[in-house]
Amino acid sequence: MRQHKLALCKHHFLEWVCDQTERNINKYKMFTKGDRVLVAVSGGKDSLALWDALNKLGYTTGGVYINLGISGDDQYSLKSQSLAEKFASDHNLVLHIVNIKSDYGKTIPEFSETNKRGKSKPCSVCGLLKRHTMNEIGSRKGYDVLVTGHNLDDEVSVLFNNVLGWQVDFLRRQSPLIPAKEGLIPKAKPFCRFYERETAAYAILANIEYIEDECPFSEGSTTIQNKELLNHLEHQRAGTKLAFYLKFLRAKKELFADLEDDKYTEALFSCPTCGQPTPKQGNCAFCRMVTRS
Amino acid sequence: MRQHKLALCKHHFLEWVCDQTERNINKYKMFTKGDRVLVAVSGGKDSLALWDALNKLGYTTGGVYINLGISGDDQYSLKSQSLAEKFASDHNLVLHIVNIKSDYGKTIPEFSETNKRGKSKPCSVCGLLKRHTMNEIGSRKGYDVLVTGHNLDDEVSVLFNNVLGWQVDFLRRQSPLIPAKEGLIPKAKPFCRFYERETAAYAILANIEYIEDECPFSEGSTTIQNKELLNHLEHQRAGTKLAFYLKFLRAKKELFADLEDDKYTEALFSCPTCGQPTPKQGNCAFCRMVTRS
Repeated sequence: MRQHKLALCKHHFLEWVCDQTERNINKYKMFTKGDRVLVAVSGGKDSLALWDALNKLGYTTGGVYINLGISGDDQYSLKSQSLAEKFASDHNLVLHIVNIKSDYGKTIPEFSETNKRGKSKPCSVCGLLKRHTMNEIGSRKGYDVLVTGHNLDDEVSVLFNNVLGWQVDFLRRQSPLIPAKEGLIPKAKPFCRFYERETAAYAILANIEYIEDECPFSEGSTTIQNKELLNHLEHQRAGTKLAFYLKFLRAKKELFADLEDDKYTEALFSCPTCGQPTPKQGNCAFCRMVTRS
Repeated sequence: MRQHKLALCKHHFLEWVCDQTERNINKYKMFTKGDRVLVAVSGGKDSLALWDALNKLGYTTGGVYINLGISGDDQYSLKSQSLAEKFASDHNLVLHIVNIKSDYGKTIPEFSETNKRGKSKPCSVCGLLKRHTMNEIGSRKGYDVLVTGHNLDDEVSVLFNNVLGWQVDFLRRQSPLIPAKEGLIPKAKPFCRFYERETAAYAILANIEYIEDECPFSEGSTTIQNKELLNHLEHQRAGTKLAFYLKFLRAKKELFADLEDDKYTEALFSCPTCGQPTPKQGNCAFCRMVTRS
């Protein structure tokens, strides 16, 4: 790990990832050992590695897997679901499974065909659907916090995009922990300081079977373009990505000193259909999508 | 010009550059027709194109050329000085020439050898020396404003670097116009919205002879690495560089709403040796460098 000037053997690497995960959880006050933690599981390396590390660290965890109905050449959703299920049963952990098609009548590709959000790519529809469903499951099943496997490369790619377009409101919101709001459980990213290659190395060394394919819709996405570019920078100057992220978190305190101001604490309404919070009166974006389609 | 969806013939391109220059000058309230404008001339395309455009627009201008004593394979300083002199005499304009070696005893490479600022590269020494000398000439000769030929690619490269390291104070200061302070004449960048290829095209189409070589010390610099990377992004999404810069200028108003606060208006002292302003009591960084060497 050039950015840390650190090289570890298998045993110490696995230990190091767990230690650092615990450190991040505490540093950003994400949750404690008394909390019930819901892990958003995709079947990929990051989410399964995260679940594994949290389990080893002694946290009380459950998983949620959302079958999006994405097939592609490799039966993406089918394959990733079976890997998530295998991990849960191997470790004797609870996995809540949501099937978008059976619950809401359509797969993600089908929703995106009839929705203006998904005209070019279904990613926006998919994001909306996942946010809604995870919060719904988390609240209904009594979890205290939702965690996702976002790694440093994911965070830095989003940050880079928000900076290129100077999207001040998005910059303001990007954080390792998004605190709870009325009707919304908190969201945390315990892996936000790990490079993607570190989470991959963890998954491999911990003998986790995960889906290696990327979502077929991610091909050519801005996220992937940004990641390539940032990898190029990292290659020129080791540690660039980590410094970019950590210095951002520090600068945020100065730039958004008014973070807690009322101005930025949007008042939330309750959706008359599903009861989840929504920034405007009337049906939430999720219910509008589902009923419209 | 993909970012503007605009293609122009020679005649209209030259006119467009002049019109846009005037527009920038007014938009950012840089200076007016009544002001005496000092152009920082390096002999390169940007500064000579800027001088040409300002002259055509009817501004009262003089130039300042600083011979840094950089030789390299191509006698960089000698060649650039003669091109600056040629431009001035062809257009019947005043050019103030400063020779670092004769005025201060050493060339830039010699200064940098004996100064900790210049241990790896002389760029920091060079910047300090140019800032000091230009302000000194500008004040002494009664100019109202100093203008430099920085183009969009220059600005965006600096911005990118400041963002990667989240250097909040540098971000706060980056602007098309740095207003006057006690003892410091204002500095403006009328070309800050032009892509480098536009200023190059202007110089060529206006038949300006300029030095094509980059400074031999710039090779492998962060600035050049950043420019390559940003060109790559621009190639993927036309207009990225311009949007990045203009959205930054807009976001600055929100991020640094406290810009005018006393906190950021450093008190300046007068250097007991040269009389120029300095942020700390005692000799300024320039005089310390010159006397120490």
